[in-house]
Amino acid sequence: MTDAANLPLDCTTLQSAYRRGALSPLTVADEVLRRIEARDDDHVWVSRADPEAVRAQARRLAERRGEMARLPLYGLPFGVKDNVDVEGLPTTCGCEGYGRLPQHSAAAVQRAIDAGALFIGKQTLDQFATGLNGTRTTGGHCLNVFDPAVIPGGSSSGSGVAVAAGLVSFSLGSDTGGSGRVPAAMNNIVGVRPTIGLVSSRGMVYNNRLFDCMPVFAHTVDDAFMVLEAIAGFDAHDPLSRADADGIALDAPEPARFRFAVPRRLEFFGDMQSPACFEAALLRLERIGGERCEIDFSLFHEAGALVFESALVAERSASYGEVLERLPHALVPAVESILRRARGYSAVDAFQAQYRLQALRQQAKRLLTGIDVVVTPTVARPFRVDEMLAEPIVRNAEVGHYTYGVGPLDLCALALPAAMRPDGLPFGISLVGRAGHDGALRALGRRFEAATGLVPGVGASAAHLRRQEAHHLRE
Amino acid sequence: MTDAANLPLDCTTLQSAYRRGALSPLTVADEVLRRIEARDDDHVWVSRADPEAVRAQARRLAERRGEMARLPLYGLPFGVKDNVDVEGLPTTCGCEGYGRLPQHSAAAVQRAIDAGALFIGKQTLDQFATGLNGTRTTGGHCLNVFDPAVIPGGSSSGSGVAVAAGLVSFSLGSDTGGSGRVPAAMNNIVGVRPTIGLVSSRGMVYNNRLFDCMPVFAHTVDDAFMVLEAIAGFDAHDPLSRADADGIALDAPEPARFRFAVPRRLEFFGDMQSPACFEAALLRLERIGGERCEIDFSLFHEAGALVFESALVAERSASYGEVLERLPHALVPAVESILRRARGYSAVDAFQAQYRLQALRQQAKRLLTGIDVVVTPTVARPFRVDEMLAEPIVRNAEVGHYTYGVGPLDLCALALPAAMRPDGLPFGISLVGRAGHDGALRALGRRFEAATGLVPGVGASAAHLRRQEAHHLRE
Repeated sequence: MTDAANLPLDCTTLQSAYRRGALSPLTVADEVLRRIEARDDDHVWVSRADPEAVRAQARRLAERRGEMARLPLYGLPFGVKDNVDVEGLPTTCGCEGYGRLPQHSAAAVQRAIDAGALFIGKQTLDQFATGLNGTRTTGGHCLNVFDPAVIPGGSSSGSGVAVAAGLVSFSLGSDTGGSGRVPAAMNNIVGVRPTIGLVSSRGMVYNNRLFDCMPVFAHTVDDAFMVLEAIAGFDAHDPLSRADADGIALDAPEPARFRFAVPRRLEFFGDMQSPACFEAALLRLERIGGERCEIDFSLFHEAGALVFESALVAERSASYGEVLERLPHALVPAVESILRRARGYSAVDAFQAQYRLQALRQQAKRLLTGIDVVVTPTVARPFRVDEMLAEPIVRNAEVGHYTYGVGPLDLCALALPAAMRPDGLPFGISLVGRAGHDGALRALGRRFEAATGLVPGVGASAAHLRRQEAHHLRE
Repeated sequence: MTDAANLPLDCTTLQSAYRRGALSPLTVADEVLRRIEARDDDHVWVSRADPEAVRAQARRLAERRGEMARLPLYGLPFGVKDNVDVEGLPTTCGCEGYGRLPQHSAAAVQRAIDAGALFIGKQTLDQFATGLNGTRTTGGHCLNVFDPAVIPGGSSSGSGVAVAAGLVSFSLGSDTGGSGRVPAAMNNIVGVRPTIGLVSSRGMVYNNRLFDCMPVFAHTVDDAFMVLEAIAGFDAHDPLSRADADGIALDAPEPARFRFAVPRRLEFFGDMQSPACFEAALLRLERIGGERCEIDFSLFHEAGALVFESALVAERSASYGEVLERLPHALVPAVESILRRARGYSAVDAFQAQYRLQALRQQAKRLLTGIDVVVTPTVARPFRVDEMLAEPIVRNAEVGHYTYGVGPLDLCALALPAAMRPDGLPFGISLVGRAGHDGALRALGRRFEAATGLVPGVGASAAHLRRQEAHHLRE
C-alpha cells in the first residue's frame, strides 16, 4: 500500500493508485482529516463536513470501486470556497451573520460529488470575494504556503492554500477579477478560470452575475482540466450558461507553433526578481514553439477598471446589498464602501456601463485576432501582508493589475507556475484565451508545465513546511 | 421596354428586367419619384434625397451595368426609417428639434448602398419608435394601404407603407417589440426581424440597445432575405454584432417535415374574422408538411412586459433621455411618460431586469427544444385609428400581444401575409425561430407564401388604390 503520510494528493497520483488497488478512498479520507487536524486552526476552513460523514462517504466510494471508470473524480478530496453553496452547511461569504442555509449544493459542486469526488469542507475567502489578497477576513487569515509574511492571494485564499498545502486534490472557487488565479500564483499551483457559462455558477453568491465564473484550483494543468471536464456543461437553470457548453472541447492537440502576445508595457511595481522570471517564461514559450508579439494591454485595464469604477458595482448590491442594513458591523471596510457606492448609480448608468463592456469585448476580439494566447505575469510581485494592511485599496489594485480585465472581457485564463524566484517565492504566469478556447490553454499549459519541471505547491520543499510550522508555533 | 407605370417594384421583377436589359435604374428612379409626387403629402416621408441626386445615382448605376453580378441590390429603390442614420439628412425620430446630423450612414444602410441599392428617403415612424400603431406622430400619420380608417402599424409605419404602396423595393427599419413586423401585417407585405447581431445596428437611435434589430420590409420572403443577405455580417464596431454573423446561413433547404408550435391560448380581442384566417394558415402549414403542437406562450408575455414594465425602459433614457429637458413640448405623451418613468429606476433594478431577461431567454431555449418554429398571428386583429387614439396605451399593448416577446427573448421572426379577410383587410402570421435560425424561417416562409398565392401589398387590387386616392381627395 501507498505510504499515506507522504502521499501527494494530485488527481493523477490518486487515480493511478486507486486503479492499481494500492489505495482506498478511506485511507485518503483519513489522511486528509489527519493533515487538516495537524494544522489546527489554520484559517483555511470556514466549516467542514463532519469527519464521520467524510469517512462514510469514502466507504461508500470504496464499495463502488467497480464503477470507477464512470466516476471521473473518484475518491478525490475537494473543498469549496465559502461563497458557493454546499447542502447542509451555511454559506457565510466570510461575513458573520450572513449564513444563508442552502437547500441544494451549487450545480457544479453537485456534479463533482456525482462524479465521485469527496467533499471535505468550505474554504475561507476575502469577505464576499471582494479582494485579491486573502487578508480581508475577520479573525485571522490563512497563510501563504511559502511565506506567512506574504499574502496567500485571494479572494479564494483557502481554496488555493488547501491545494498547495496538500489538503485536497482540488478546490472550487469563484472568479470575478482574479480570485481563481491570484491564489494559484501565490501558492505555486494551477488555477483555471473557464469561459463564462461553461461551468454552471448556479448556487454562487455573485459579485458580477454577468461575468462571475467558477474556477478550479489543482496541482497540475491536467488535474485542473480533468475536474473542469467533470463539472462543465449546459445548465438550463443558469441564465448565463452557454448553449454550447457541452460541446466546447476541453482538450486540444498541442500546437507545433503558436503565437503569443505580451503586454507592451510591463509593470512589476518595483520588484527586481519577477521581470527575469517572466522573461525566462517567455523564452521557454519560444523554445516550445511560440512566436512572441506585443499588444496594447490598456483595453484590459479599461475593462478591469469597470469592475470597481462603474455602475457594475451595483451588481454586488443586487446580490447581497441587504447586508449593508442588516449586518453593517460585520462588514470589512472594502465591502462596506463598495456597497455604499453602488447605491449612487442609476439604471441609465448601469446600461451605459454595460454598453461600454460590450464594446470592449468586441475590441478584445479584434485585438486577439491572429493570436493564440495572451501571456502575462499572474501577479506582478509577491505582496507582503503588512504592506497590504497598510494600504489595502492601492495594493489590492496592484495585485489585480494583470487579472482584472480577463473576466469582463469574456476571456478564459489558465494561471500556472512558471519559476521559483531567487527569494524562494513562486512566480506564475497566466495564459489568456478567447471565450470557448479553454482547450487550447490546456494544451499549451501542459507543454509549458512540462518544460518548467516545477513541483506544484510546496511540493517536496520540506524547508517550506518547516518554516510554516515554525511560524505556527510562534503564534 | 417595361411599362413603368405598372411596374411592380419587387426585387425579383426589377432584377430580372435589369438583367434582360429591359429596364434601366434611371427609369425606375423616375417612376419612383413620379409615384411619390403623385401621392403628394402622404406622411410616408420625413425627408427625401434630392430628386436630382437620386437620378444622378441611378445614372451611375446604369453606367455600372457590367458590375451587376457583384451588386446584389443593383438598382433597387429603398427607404430608411427616420431613426436610422443616412448621411446628409437629419435623423429626426419624428421629433421636431431632435434632428441629429449624422456624419455617416448607418452601417447597414451603407452596405445596401454599396450593394447597388438606390436610396430614396427617410420614412415616418411612431415618435422614437415608441408604439406599434403608426399614429404617434405630430402633424398627421401615413395611411394603411388597405383602409385609411385602420392603423398603418408601427413604429415603422412609413417603411411598411412605402413597400406596400409600391414606392420602393424594400425598407430598412428598426424593431424592438414588433416595429419590423406589425406594419408588414397591416399592409400585406413581408417583414423580417433578424437574429440580434446578425445585421449591424450601428447608426440607429436605439430604444433597447441590448435587443434592438434592423428589420427588412419587402414584397416577398425571398426579396426580404436577399436584402438581409446583402446587409448582414459582422461589424467589429457594433458591440452587439455576433462574431458568427458572417457564417449564419440565410437560406436552408425547404424541410419535408417540420414541427410548429402554436400558443395554447389565442387572443383576438373580440375579432370574428382573424380566428378563421389563423386556423386556415395552420391547416396550410400542416398541408405543406407541418406537425402542429401547442406551447404555453406566457413566457413571451412575461418577456414582452419587461420592455415597458421594468428598468429596461431606462435604456431609452440612456439613448435619448436628454429630450425630456431639451424638447419637452415636442414629445408625444407615450414617449414623455416612459422617459419620466425611466428616471425612477436604480442600477440594481437594471441588473435585476437583465438577470430576469437572461433567465427567460434560457427558458425560451428549453421551450423551443424540438420545435422548428413558433407560429402566431402577427397582429390579433386590425385596429382602427379612432379606437387607437381613444385609448392609446391599452390598444397599443393589444397590437403587440404576439410580437413583444420575440426580441427580448433573442429570437428571430418572419412576418408574412397569410390571408385576405372577408372585410378585405390583410391577415398575417409570424414564424418565430431560435437565434441564428433565420435561414430556416426563409425556407418555411417561402413555401407557405407560395401556398397562399397572395399578391403582396395592395398588389393588383386597383380598388384599394382608388379608395385611397378618394380619401386623399377628401382631406
